[in-house]
Amino acid sequence: MEYARFVNGDRMKDFFRLMSRTQFLELLEGFEPLDSEVVPLTQARGRVLAQDILAPEDLPPFSRSTMDGFAVRAKATFGASESEPSLFKVVGEVPMGSSGQDIEVGPLEAAKIWTGGALPRGADSVVMVEFTHPIDEETIEVFKPVAPGENVIAKGEDYREGDVVLEGGRVLGPSDLGALAGLGIVEVPVVKRPKVAVLSTGDELVPPDATPRPGEIRDINSTTLHLLIEECGGIPVPMGIIPDDFDSLKRACEEALREGADVVLLSGGSSVGRRDYTLDVFRGLKGCDVLAHGVSIRPGKPTILAKQGNRALFGLPGHVASAIVVFLLFVRPLVRYMSGRDLSTGLNEVRVRCGQEFPSVSGREDFVRVRLEDGPEGLSDMKWAYPVWGKSGLISPLVKAHGLLKIPRDSEGLERGEEATCLLFSYTYQ
Amino acid sequence: MEYARFVNGDRMKDFFRLMSRTQFLELLEGFEPLDSEVVPLTQARGRVLAQDILAPEDLPPFSRSTMDGFAVRAKATFGASESEPSLFKVVGEVPMGSSGQDIEVGPLEAAKIWTGGALPRGADSVVMVEFTHPIDEETIEVFKPVAPGENVIAKGEDYREGDVVLEGGRVLGPSDLGALAGLGIVEVPVVKRPKVAVLSTGDELVPPDATPRPGEIRDINSTTLHLLIEECGGIPVPMGIIPDDFDSLKRACEEALREGADVVLLSGGSSVGRRDYTLDVFRGLKGCDVLAHGVSIRPGKPTILAKQGNRALFGLPGHVASAIVVFLLFVRPLVRYMSGRDLSTGLNEVRVRCGQEFPSVSGREDFVRVRLEDGPEGLSDMKWAYPVWGKSGLISPLVKAHGLLKIPRDSEGLERGEEATCLLFSYTYQ
Repeated sequence: MEYARFVNGDRMKDFFRLMSRTQFLELLEGFEPLDSEVVPLTQARGRVLAQDILAPEDLPPFSRSTMDGFAVRAKATFGASESEPSLFKVVGEVPMGSSGQDIEVGPLEAAKIWTGGALPRGADSVVMVEFTHPIDEETIEVFKPVAPGENVIAKGEDYREGDVVLEGGRVLGPSDLGALAGLGIVEVPVVKRPKVAVLSTGDELVPPDATPRPGEIRDINSTTLHLLIEECGGIPVPMGIIPDDFDSLKRACEEALREGADVVLLSGGSSVGRRDYTLDVFRGLKGCDVLAHGVSIRPGKPTILAKQGNRALFGLPGHVASAIVVFLLFVRPLVRYMSGRDLSTGLNEVRVRCGQEFPSVSGREDFVRVRLEDGPEGLSDMKWAYPVWGKSGLISPLVKAHGLLKIPRDSEGLERGEEATCLLFSYTYQ
Repeated sequence: MEYARFVNGDRMKDFFRLMSRTQFLELLEGFEPLDSEVVPLTQARGRVLAQDILAPEDLPPFSRSTMDGFAVRAKATFGASESEPSLFKVVGEVPMGSSGQDIEVGPLEAAKIWTGGALPRGADSVVMVEFTHPIDEETIEVFKPVAPGENVIAKGEDYREGDVVLEGGRVLGPSDLGALAGLGIVEVPVVKRPKVAVLSTGDELVPPDATPRPGEIRDINSTTLHLLIEECGGIPVPMGIIPDDFDSLKRACEEALREGADVVLLSGGSSVGRRDYTLDVFRGLKGCDVLAHGVSIRPGKPTILAKQGNRALFGLPGHVASAIVVFLLFVRPLVRYMSGRDLSTGLNEVRVRCGQEFPSVSGREDFVRVRLEDGPEGLSDMKWAYPVWGKSGLISPLVKAHGLLKIPRDSEGLERGEEATCLLFSYTYQ
């Protein structure tokens, strides 16, 4: 009976509908960005703005000095020079934080003002203190003319009431959020971060903090996927290690969906038999369609994608290198897309030269773990990529690699010295 | 009296010891990276490893199959082919998670095994199920020879006990932490993240959630700096808006240091008078030396740096654009350095062409807010940079800009079409 499933699993391989990476990504376009939620400014960095933000008022709300000096009527300074300074009567000082409206500056009058102070009535400009000289407590000489508006930030110069400050879809950075703070907008509507449930399966797996008995091994994928999810802006929902049987897996998927997971990652289906389980489990979920079963990439071929409403369920290969490649190529773009970004990996891509021959097979895209090094003498226009070979069940080659070299679908391999594209892992290469 | 300070502030300018950006960065090398702390794996992403990590045991702890198939002695398959398959007696199946030690595979015997399963005694390789055919429940044909070790990850193939898994100083990524999980290392020593206190001063300032009275304005810098600190891995410690007088500022700095701040940012000293306060406050702190007062960059000239033990205190210009430039050029490298990274901004730098003339003055470095756009037809080898002019007290030019164009210290400006370097803001350009 076990044997039947075993061999049946083998035959199933013939039914793989192998699609290209591009076709797989097109399937992901069938999902929708998530709804929005309102968060405080200090939690909005890197989030995607859900709608345009208009200025509710002018910024600054009044005309302000950009210098320490004297607020004057510019016209009265015209013609002033080192040799023929103009005399001004100092009629007061604008205290910081006061409206300036209780001081009026007449034609040959000046009011002391500090950087950021509100321009008093009658004044239209500020003479820098460097271009003045005190005669007595009530009189100054001005050596240099100013133009109207000089050394002043006018009311509404940053934003006028009703201006579009930020457009929906923008990824929010520190300055954007500073602008909102200045306008008194302290919460902001952003696209929700997708919750990504991580289910590991495999009866040989134990958690990282357990001591494995002979034949058992610690779960690596849960930790790696957790951090990969966070890295691209998702919220990891760890579901632990699930017993490797249909009922347990189905129950765990249902629980993940009930808990609001937008994406479910079922990791551990490297075995042909297990892949069948994953397929059966996904097919057994209410309203769930299997969209893809197999992609023509290496590693990562046995990837499964299913869809329940706007929820995505991935059957990831169990081998850690394959799981990471599939995560970067498909899950990461989907998490970004659901968070309001574009459907791309968002990883840095660099052009490199092949440090040696990279064999491949036409009809599939290869993603080879590579180290980047300086090129040979005289050939240092770009970094050179050297493969970090190793079985896809090993984690150490990923630790040693800087990124993934892409061998195109129509290529039978790359020659030494040939140009290629490398997707950089985020943190390891710097 | 007020006037005396005012004019004295003016004269102080002559005493500015203007140093270059490089000299300023050399001063920052006088600080030390922080101590280490131990954190769980899921909190260690992007952190800097404080010491080498050695493998406490072999990974994997036993030889495992990488395929579904049959564990055999490789030698017994030599010569097998489609036309002349070898016959093997199936002596059992290795259940997942079992040690495999209760099954012994003899020369012409095979044991069923699943991906990840432990190799049984006597076996040295695995024949993929695809290259076998069942004759009956106890017998299979094998069509293809395997080499010893084929389709097997050997005990210790990822790491051998005592191997250096990760070197101290490494910035930890998902795969690194997955490797540690696999080895049962669930906590990791990392360099502490610096605490960065943010003090805003200015009697005209009110918090973003307050309604300013005439003459008052909402504090922008606290929000922007908070997010810039987080963005480079620091822990922001918001200290609020401090009254603009010597005693209040000194008390607030002392409190920040008492609360463990590694870096103190005093923002709001654009006014000449206020700069004096900042200097006096820093000088008045116990064991605190002022290392720099003025840098030959624009914007950002009136930057102050002081040092108390391994704590850094910055007097940042109050104008928001100047504060951000100084943060990116100096505070960000220091936060990275204190966290165990290199003393660089860590920002992406791209080569661009100037979309128009950029005037400058020899003897200082300019950092001009620029937008990047595609070049004119036929000149699209790189992005073209166009200035986003605007007074440094405005936030909107920073919202519109993609980065800072660097005009070198020895340059009197850049011509249209000339190549230059642009420091990209992290999130806004993508």
